[in-house]
Amino acid sequence: MTNKPLIGAAVIGQSGGPSSVINASAYGVIKTALESEYITTVYGANHGIKGVLNDRLMIMDKEDPAELEKMLYTPSSALGSCRYKIADPDVDDTDYKRILEIFKKYNVRYFFYNGGNDSMDTCNKISRYCAKVGYECRVFGVPKTIDNDLYGTDHCPGFASAAKYIATSFMEVSRDCHVYDVGMVTIIECMGRHAGWLTAAASLANLKGDGPDLIYLPEVDFDMDQFIADVKRVYAEKKNCLVAVSEGVHYADGSFVSEAKTSGTDGFGHAQLGGLAARLASVVKAATGAKVRGIELSLLQRCASHCASATDIEESFNSGKIAVESALAGITGKMVGFKCDRSSGYKCEYVLFDLTDVANTEQKVPLEWITPEHNGVTQDFIDYCLPLIQGETRQAKEDGLPAFVHLKKIFAE
Amino acid sequence: MTNKPLIGAAVIGQSGGPSSVINASAYGVIKTALESEYITTVYGANHGIKGVLNDRLMIMDKEDPAELEKMLYTPSSALGSCRYKIADPDVDDTDYKRILEIFKKYNVRYFFYNGGNDSMDTCNKISRYCAKVGYECRVFGVPKTIDNDLYGTDHCPGFASAAKYIATSFMEVSRDCHVYDVGMVTIIECMGRHAGWLTAAASLANLKGDGPDLIYLPEVDFDMDQFIADVKRVYAEKKNCLVAVSEGVHYADGSFVSEAKTSGTDGFGHAQLGGLAARLASVVKAATGAKVRGIELSLLQRCASHCASATDIEESFNSGKIAVESALAGITGKMVGFKCDRSSGYKCEYVLFDLTDVANTEQKVPLEWITPEHNGVTQDFIDYCLPLIQGETRQAKEDGLPAFVHLKKIFAE
Repeated sequence: MTNKPLIGAAVIGQSGGPSSVINASAYGVIKTALESEYITTVYGANHGIKGVLNDRLMIMDKEDPAELEKMLYTPSSALGSCRYKIADPDVDDTDYKRILEIFKKYNVRYFFYNGGNDSMDTCNKISRYCAKVGYECRVFGVPKTIDNDLYGTDHCPGFASAAKYIATSFMEVSRDCHVYDVGMVTIIECMGRHAGWLTAAASLANLKGDGPDLIYLPEVDFDMDQFIADVKRVYAEKKNCLVAVSEGVHYADGSFVSEAKTSGTDGFGHAQLGGLAARLASVVKAATGAKVRGIELSLLQRCASHCASATDIEESFNSGKIAVESALAGITGKMVGFKCDRSSGYKCEYVLFDLTDVANTEQKVPLEWITPEHNGVTQDFIDYCLPLIQGETRQAKEDGLPAFVHLKKIFAE
Repeated sequence: MTNKPLIGAAVIGQSGGPSSVINASAYGVIKTALESEYITTVYGANHGIKGVLNDRLMIMDKEDPAELEKMLYTPSSALGSCRYKIADPDVDDTDYKRILEIFKKYNVRYFFYNGGNDSMDTCNKISRYCAKVGYECRVFGVPKTIDNDLYGTDHCPGFASAAKYIATSFMEVSRDCHVYDVGMVTIIECMGRHAGWLTAAASLANLKGDGPDLIYLPEVDFDMDQFIADVKRVYAEKKNCLVAVSEGVHYADGSFVSEAKTSGTDGFGHAQLGGLAARLASVVKAATGAKVRGIELSLLQRCASHCASATDIEESFNSGKIAVESALAGITGKMVGFKCDRSSGYKCEYVLFDLTDVANTEQKVPLEWITPEHNGVTQDFIDYCLPLIQGETRQAKEDGLPAFVHLKKIFAE
């Protein structure tokens, strides 16, 4: 291995559930790679690692630079995503041999993988395989996940924009559901299987006096009787109650509260959740007789680029940029992450984490940031999260609607 | 009756479901009334006509003008809303006697009611009662409804902002649900009991290549077999299908497709709808085996002020302003509406409609704007709707979140 820049092609792939800013990270990789004199061609893998396995590589050099820049403000994965669980190379190395074949075919010496926990695992396995077989390729993880659960980093690109949308939507719905003098209970379900970061973000709306009365996270056990008692108490006091609840709340035995509604699993074997808000709404309606409405933020929360955080966009871009710069400097097997200082203002420093440490480890909301009653979060969470949602997107509009990127998608032969 | 300005107080009330810009209209009334030398005091009725009946009038003169201006960018009804069906005065005049008592108590000579169909009916009844008993009070309807179904006017304040949010959200979700190379059917439910304007607005996203494949409106009968066939066809072609459906779609016998989920009615006796997206999703899943997701935009679509149309905000403000100016000029029993010219650019003229004509008449999407297959809308709708969503809100932000109005709410003795 050498510290000198390798001469060869780069591949960038996107994986897992998309976010409002995953394309900002990919653009950070693509733009920096296109500007490098050592990187001969920049390929976008169509649908993540499946694009490599299927030899579906888009030539990013052939895209219009002005159009590419719109990736900063376009949600979802512009290159296409996948949910593909790669095998353990010691058990089955078929995929790895194929990846190596493609890497050799295009002389790929840089591989950047843009995704969450499972994607960092994929990235790590490829990195270790390349090292094992002596193929010189610098492999970097570029983090993404609205779930904010990647190990080590202060926070994850994508989380802040979803948090901003959630807090904004809670403020708006709070105004809406307080409009009548007859009472109403409103239950809003946020994403987060095992980590409650997104649901906790609803608390930011309370800073403005328009937030949830009760917040339930999956970090602690959910008690239906206590939940009903909480709602009844707030409703009796205020003739109104706004609840934020994570899709992943579970009983003490570990079973998901939503589980009767569970159907099927995603490609990684996770149970697909949904319908929790409606379920809790019917429980509360039966228990209180109040007017109750359940709202599921569903996909909206992870693609609302029109409400993205400028801080998130900038940090997402930079994490892609720094991945390329670090790889050019000879580093491999790492993920770019953030180390933040909030002691006076907010400072974000970019640091590198070993992929081995990151892969498949989930970072949850600290238990000490959850109130003793398990129905709210503390000021510590607010202090942590608020700096991340600052700044408004500069997304261009055409005809009063967002101007998203449209790639030519010219594939390599 | 006289054409000279009456000297006395004004009352503004808000009624029905809120919108992103109903406060912009109320602000148009309040600001213009506060500036008038003839209007002695401006009262905000707390929770619409119930605020009058309960003698709960807020003195708007005592609010800070800079704070009041935030009403332009604050969703929901800042004065509080109600769903109160007032009796026919010929059958039961109890409420009217009470209203007259309050009007006399505060020397109310101007009454502005800000709402939709039912509110225009209330407004009309009060206008006729005042005339009948010879109490000189100028009564004006200031329109509001995201449903866009008020008779006579080209469109309704509130519709355009909801339409902009819906089209934007469809663009975003379209990107999100096209991210994998495995197929997915996504069904998004929009509000609209009897009129499909909001659901039709999803079609604007198609201008940008990111819109729904199929659109179902309540103006025509819904055929479940045809719906399943439509989805299957699109899914077979594209491995993907995005559907926009109105909450109010109904079978040929008039029964709502969602009706098994119906529970209770709102205060006006309308069936409360909901759960249609989930219902259709399970039908499609059973019929196709595809991965299917149902999303209900729910309250989000009527309060998303962060995505409001600047055109809508301006027109909403102006409709309140013109109501006051017209009342001062001696006119009564009217609703402010719009007459628009789209022949070269977009011009909006403010016109007055008789409340008697407006009350309880619904304006639906013209049948000739719906495709013969009943699963889309024509260019006529696009040409109609697109000018309305132009321009971005200038909503101020604090801490990265919207700065909503906070009224002091000082009540008259």
